Amino acid sequence: MREHRKIEHVGIKPSMRVGELVREMGKSGVFGAGRIAEAADVYRGMVDSDATIFMGLGGALVAGGLRQVITKAIKHELVDVIVTTGANVVHDLIEAFGGHHLRGEPFVDDARLRERGVSRIYDTYVPQRAFELFEDRIQPLLREVTKHDTRMSSAKLLREIGLRLRDRDSFIGAAAKRGVPVFAPALVDSIFGIQAWLFAQDHEIVLDGLLDMKEMIELAHRAENSGALLLGGGVPKNFIFQSKLLAPTPFRYAIQITMDRPEHGGLSGATLEEAKSWGKVAPDARLVTVIGDATAIFPMLIAAVLARGKRKKP
Amino acid sequence: MREHRKIEHVGIKPSMRVGELVREMGKSGVFGAGRIAEAADVYRGMVDSDATIFMGLGGALVAGGLRQVITKAIKHELVDVIVTTGANVVHDLIEAFGGHHLRGEPFVDDARLRERGVSRIYDTYVPQRAFELFEDRIQPLLREVTKHDTRMSSAKLLREIGLRLRDRDSFIGAAAKRGVPVFAPALVDSIFGIQAWLFAQDHEIVLDGLLDMKEMIELAHRAENSGALLLGGGVPKNFIFQSKLLAPTPFRYAIQITMDRPEHGGLSGATLEEAKSWGKVAPDARLVTVIGDATAIFPMLIAAVLARGKRKKP
Amino acid sequence: MREHRKIEHVGIKPSMRVGELVREMGKSGVFGAGRIAEAADVYRGMVDSDATIFMGLGGALVAGGLRQVITKAIKHELVDVIVTTGANVVHDLIEAFGGHHLRGEPFVDDARLRERGVSRIYDTYVPQRAFELFEDRIQPLLREVTKHDTRMSSAKLLREIGLRLRDRDSFIGAAAKRGVPVFAPALVDSIFGIQAWLFAQDHEIVLDGLLDMKEMIELAHRAENSGALLLGGGVPKNFIFQSKLLAPTPFRYAIQITMDRPEHGGLSGATLEEAKSWGKVAPDARLVTVIGDATAIFPMLIAAVLARGKRKKP
Amino acid sequence: MREHRKIEHVGIKPSMRVGELVREMGKSGVFGAGRIAEAADVYRGMVDSDATIFMGLGGALVAGGLRQVITKAIKHELVDVIVTTGANVVHDLIEAFGGHHLRGEPFVDDARLRERGVSRIYDTYVPQRAFELFEDRIQPLLREVTKHDTRMSSAKLLREIGLRLRDRDSFIGAAAKRGVPVFAPALVDSIFGIQAWLFAQDHEIVLDGLLDMKEMIELAHRAENSGALLLGGGVPKNFIFQSKLLAPTPFRYAIQITMDRPEHGGLSGATLEEAKSWGKVAPDARLVTVIGDATAIFPMLIAAVLARGKRKKP
Repeated sequence: MREHRKIEHVGIKPSMRVGELVREMGKSGVFGAGRIAEAADVYRGMVDSDATIFMGLGGALVAGGLRQVITKAIKHELVDVIVTTGANVVHDLIEAFGGHHLRGEPFVDDARLRERGVSRIYDTYVPQRAFELFEDRIQPLLREVTKHDTRMSSAKLLREIGLRLRDRDSFIGAAAKRGVPVFAPALVDSIFGIQAWLFAQDHEIVLDGLLDMKEMIELAHRAENSGALLLGGGVPKNFIFQSKLLAPTPFRYAIQITMDRPEHGGLSGATLEEAKSWGKVAPDARLVTVIGDATAIFPMLIAAVLARGKRKKP
Repeated sequence: MREHRKIEHVGIKPSMRVGELVREMGKSGVFGAGRIAEAADVYRGMVDSDATIFMGLGGALVAGGLRQVITKAIKHELVDVIVTTGANVVHDLIEAFGGHHLRGEPFVDDARLRERGVSRIYDTYVPQRAFELFEDRIQPLLREVTKHDTRMSSAKLLREIGLRLRDRDSFIGAAAKRGVPVFAPALVDSIFGIQAWLFAQDHEIVLDGLLDMKEMIELAHRAENSGALLLGGGVPKNFIFQSKLLAPTPFRYAIQITMDRPEHGGLSGATLEEAKSWGKVAPDARLVTVIGDATAIFPMLIAAVLARGKRKKP
Repeated sequence: MREHRKIEHVGIKPSMRVGELVREMGKSGVFGAGRIAEAADVYRGMVDSDATIFMGLGGALVAGGLRQVITKAIKHELVDVIVTTGANVVHDLIEAFGGHHLRGEPFVDDARLRERGVSRIYDTYVPQRAFELFEDRIQPLLREVTKHDTRMSSAKLLREIGLRLRDRDSFIGAAAKRGVPVFAPALVDSIFGIQAWLFAQDHEIVLDGLLDMKEMIELAHRAENSGALLLGGGVPKNFIFQSKLLAPTPFRYAIQITMDRPEHGGLSGATLEEAKSWGKVAPDARLVTVIGDATAIFPMLIAAVLARGKRKKP
Repeated sequence: MREHRKIEHVGIKPSMRVGELVREMGKSGVFGAGRIAEAADVYRGMVDSDATIFMGLGGALVAGGLRQVITKAIKHELVDVIVTTGANVVHDLIEAFGGHHLRGEPFVDDARLRERGVSRIYDTYVPQRAFELFEDRIQPLLREVTKHDTRMSSAKLLREIGLRLRDRDSFIGAAAKRGVPVFAPALVDSIFGIQAWLFAQDHEIVLDGLLDMKEMIELAHRAENSGALLLGGGVPKNFIFQSKLLAPTPFRYAIQITMDRPEHGGLSGATLEEAKSWGKVAPDARLVTVIGDATAIFPMLIAAVLARGKRKKP
């Protein structure tokens, strides 16, 4: 048996920095704390080897307060390609258009919320006026971006919209301005989809899923050294992973932060090891799964990665 | 405080029928067992009130052995509309084309599986030849179904394919033959998507997500009395629920069987109560969540519902 | 690679027996359904090889409606030694004394329940009069059983109490009458403990944990062929497993039904494989973990095991 | 409907301190991140109101690297009473005696680990020599501490042992020296229990659970203003909560950090609200549950609480 390192215990200081805390977690190296430190190492490995970093945004992370963290990751070049649920697109745009999310309660009378025009996402409230604002602003935008081209991928559509946003905190805006493509392969499965459907009543627009595949497969193909950073599962995780099925080189790094588990067979909770059997990740890839809530873990991770210095693009 | 029923204990007999077991679980009525009995009651309520039943198939249920149970539910008219992940489509078609899934192990050397051409889904193995067979058979089918129409919804595409299948156990085939639409709004996010992309290299085909929305919204609009039966979460759950955002009547019944939880804010684990605030389910809807693995719970549920007699369509 | 069995799909019939359903689950053999069928096989293996079966009762299974199932398992000789939480002891005795549990709601105003004298266990309610009845009956029983011996193990105490119960549904009663020892190593950690403490104000009584260890270690030592059947984790799981640390032969079989997971390092969610490294289970032991709610899974398991015939004691 | 605060997004800086990060999480206030910030507020509320703080240590936190964090909490007067599993006692003493835990792998050949004398706790390894060292040192200690008194509570036993330890990082040592009682009501359910049983073969020793109850009930009775801080569930959680069943004042604060859930009815996953119905926590208590791995969350929490200054004892 190879020599195993002694477990040292996590040390705490009142004024410690996040980067230090994560390093301390690495000194023990076990259980959940160990996984966070390992994730920071693997992430830093991606950054330092100049890997193309594909980030999956499952769930409703923007409604959960992670909007600026995602935008920060884009601005600091910690991510190169994004795949997201429709929900994150909607919530980002609502705020870009001047709307707000509210802090609510998870156990309430939902019928009464309904009467008052409030839609609930766990303990986040979305007031009716946010959706009205969304409608008011997205319809003219759709008109504008479909002027020259009516059939497009979600990535093209979101880039065109992103370029027209002025809110510097918008992750869709920041991504568009920095050339980071944002895919939402199931964009119709969201309030955005509802608005696009309304738009389609008297306008020509085609959201062609195969164009998403085309663009994504090309990106995956070109990315010789690449890594996946998966917050939650769902379509973002699978779409990122399957993009490598036809690529010459699989992912060399993968991190997932999730509360899902593998035993019932869904892809969301599948282990990263499983992806080796599909050729989505390399046999010797650096893999780490953190079981936890991304709203709690991801900010810590980004702070810890940033603490080790900027990405040096060659 | 209203009078609460005494808890009676679950009785067991060596030769008992599944329907009896579920009734016994209803006698206690608490914890997980109570939820299963309640789900059978709510399901039976949908059937007896002739509700339009929307079924969501999250995860990889077909690879998990539920193919015939789903097909049985279709044939016994226990479901009227299906929304599924791409994975279930692929696994159903592989078997319809004569391929197989194998029973494997969840903890193995995945790099070695890769070398041997086996892709793993927890403890299900998909041999390479299954995917080759899928390619051999789906390409001519795509050619055939796009002859007259190149732009279509996933539901239309799957109906056309289903009508051409001879395997009586296929849920896509059974659904097509009985007029049960099968939506896969994120169909590109699967091996089917990969094949469609290959096909699109030298053929015209557009998978237009907005056509899915159109058809689904119309179905939801027409279904005055309706219920949702959700196995797992993901796109199927959200797509079913959001179809009611523009409908005059929300769901009157909803059942979900899931291992997901609400605290991290993803829609997959959201409570059914939350859907009230969105107007997706009625304020007085009958709702029940069973925390459990659908491969274990759903067969029990279907057997228990069938045990109470056939659906009587008016 | 060894030949892997083709997955056959679970078949359903309206009038099917529980035993048949579990066999059907075994035909697929994967995901959660596969684990249930495997658990039935392993359990039957214990029974047919006449193993000494140690059953752990974590959580509040009796309050959850499993009282008669546990008692049935005792009467049909499907269990030889029981280790339980204090909670199951209290809830069994409340009913043995003529009290009841009520079926309530999981999301309520708990402060109001408090005012009305109702204690909640998820959706089970325990009315104040149940605890009063418990006090009225347990105090004279404690007086009686400590007449000759004031220092005893939990197993001895529960045997003495069990022999004095007339309720045929009580698992403590059935166990006492059939010579199945019932250990509750953390018995003080329950309402029983509170009552014992009250009793100890003016009586001599010593609940000596080391006597529990002594009796348990002897049982584990003698049981050459043995198996563990663990419902939930906690002290029952650990106490059963650690009893083998000093025994000549480890467990040859182990089944756990649990919602707990291993990643945060607690013993409750630890894999059964891990127990091999401690020598608690044999290197070639038959092990199966079912991720699920024991109130839903355990009745199905017992019905399926009973369906294969009675235990033949040599 | 009362006015709800706008959700602001978590801001990240490369050099930010842990306290700042937790404050940023409080600005969003939702999902898992929001719960961590709330936990810091509630903890600080306990400290500033000079509440008696009861800390529950479920699972194997010491093996998971939290030993120094717990000890730090004791030294900074952030905890007044501790209830622990036997596992944490054993792992603390192994290190106090000069032994080590090793950093291992969670997916290994456990039969081979067994051959090499390594016991596994998820990804922590305990080498055989650690247990031998434990035996060598605990036996004389047991002889010494039972010289004057052979019948005692776990708290008394651990205090006597703690006073004899020289390792400044030991939480049992630090607690003993600062008068913080450490209860382990299920101490026999651990390797310590095995050693005590060996000792009992030829020495007089009685571990009387009712003495634990007596001491704990007195502490709970005296603590007019009190709070519970629960890492994991199990006996520690229940023992802390039930101590208030006979006390004049329930807990005014409660925090739990856990991966357990309520639906299957076990106390480990029960909501803190449920404790109101039992009178264990006050109707207007400040309650917060963080769903997460304590090894990841607890160090962050302690750092954040310490960052707001020392506890001022009146």
